Amino acid sequence: MEVILGRRSIRKYSEQSVSDEQLKRLLEAAMAAPSGHNKQPWHFIVIKDRATLSEIPKFHNYSKMLEQAPLAIVVCGDLEIEGGSGFWVQDCSAATQNILLAAKAIGLGAVWLGVYPNEGLVKGLKTLLKIPEKITPLCIISVGHPLEEKPPGNRYREDRVHHNQW
Amino acid sequence: MEVILGRRSIRKYSEQSVSDEQLKRLLEAAMAAPSGHNKQPWHFIVIKDRATLSEIPKFHNYSKMLEQAPLAIVVCGDLEIEGGSGFWVQDCSAATQNILLAAKAIGLGAVWLGVYPNEGLVKGLKTLLKIPEKITPLCIISVGHPLEEKPPGNRYREDRVHHNQW
Repeated sequence: MEVILGRRSIRKYSEQSVSDEQLKRLLEAAMAAPSGHNKQPWHFIVIKDRATLSEIPKFHNYSKMLEQAPLAIVVCGDLEIEGGSGFWVQDCSAATQNILLAAKAIGLGAVWLGVYPNEGLVKGLKTLLKIPEKITPLCIISVGHPLEEKPPGNRYREDRVHHNQW
Repeated sequence: MEVILGRRSIRKYSEQSVSDEQLKRLLEAAMAAPSGHNKQPWHFIVIKDRATLSEIPKFHNYSKMLEQAPLAIVVCGDLEIEGGSGFWVQDCSAATQNILLAAKAIGLGAVWLGVYPNEGLVKGLKTLLKIPEKITPLCIISVGHPLEEKPPGNRYREDRVHHNQW
């Protein structure tokens, strides 16, 4: 619970790299997410290459931290595997949230950068990463060793809770 | 990490009810999720009313466990708050995943029942729960004290991981 309630978006990182073991934990967490009819319609593009990371802020306005981040994971939906149910966005979002929480749990910091359904961002990433036609990038997760500390957000709002009907 | 890797879909529950304190923890977890531009475009309809819970399986094929479940939470997106970015599905999915993990963390069992984008299911829920026009139900989470135990899923697949480009 402390991981869930204490997780915040972390955009400043030290120069330390993310180890292969840490990366594996993040990807295991991602693929432990539930998915509609258990289709698991996801792929993960792990970017450590500095030049590739630095290309992204050239077309994605909110991704400047990638110039310093040691690692990004692009979460992609596979529409062929999903099979037309329309659940791939939810499935890949659950996987993304698991990565953010796993990062927090193992002492890393991360932030979710929106891509889909912004057509320009989807196209920019598909071109940069040579992503095939049937695959759609949902988001980018920037990951590193945190250089900032934030208190829990406390976003609970009673007025968003309804009982038995609206 | 054990919560993330060990969470499974739980569809069988004892007759024990979910306490108000437990419910509050689930909702705090939900609203601790990140959202695009921090818009928090979500609402949660908590259903404990037995008659209402039993209505849902009449139009939702995969929701038969609700006839026994002590609690369901309908996660809804508020398109007015979201403001046209198209991120509400991702935001509400992150909140949903947080609820599933929080349930596991406090000893409850839960399962994510897809609704959106199936038009018939969206309409059925909107009518049953008197949900306003600008609000869209994303999914239903069935919650209870688990009467089944499942080992971790181990869904990690190396072939879904790509490096630096596709």
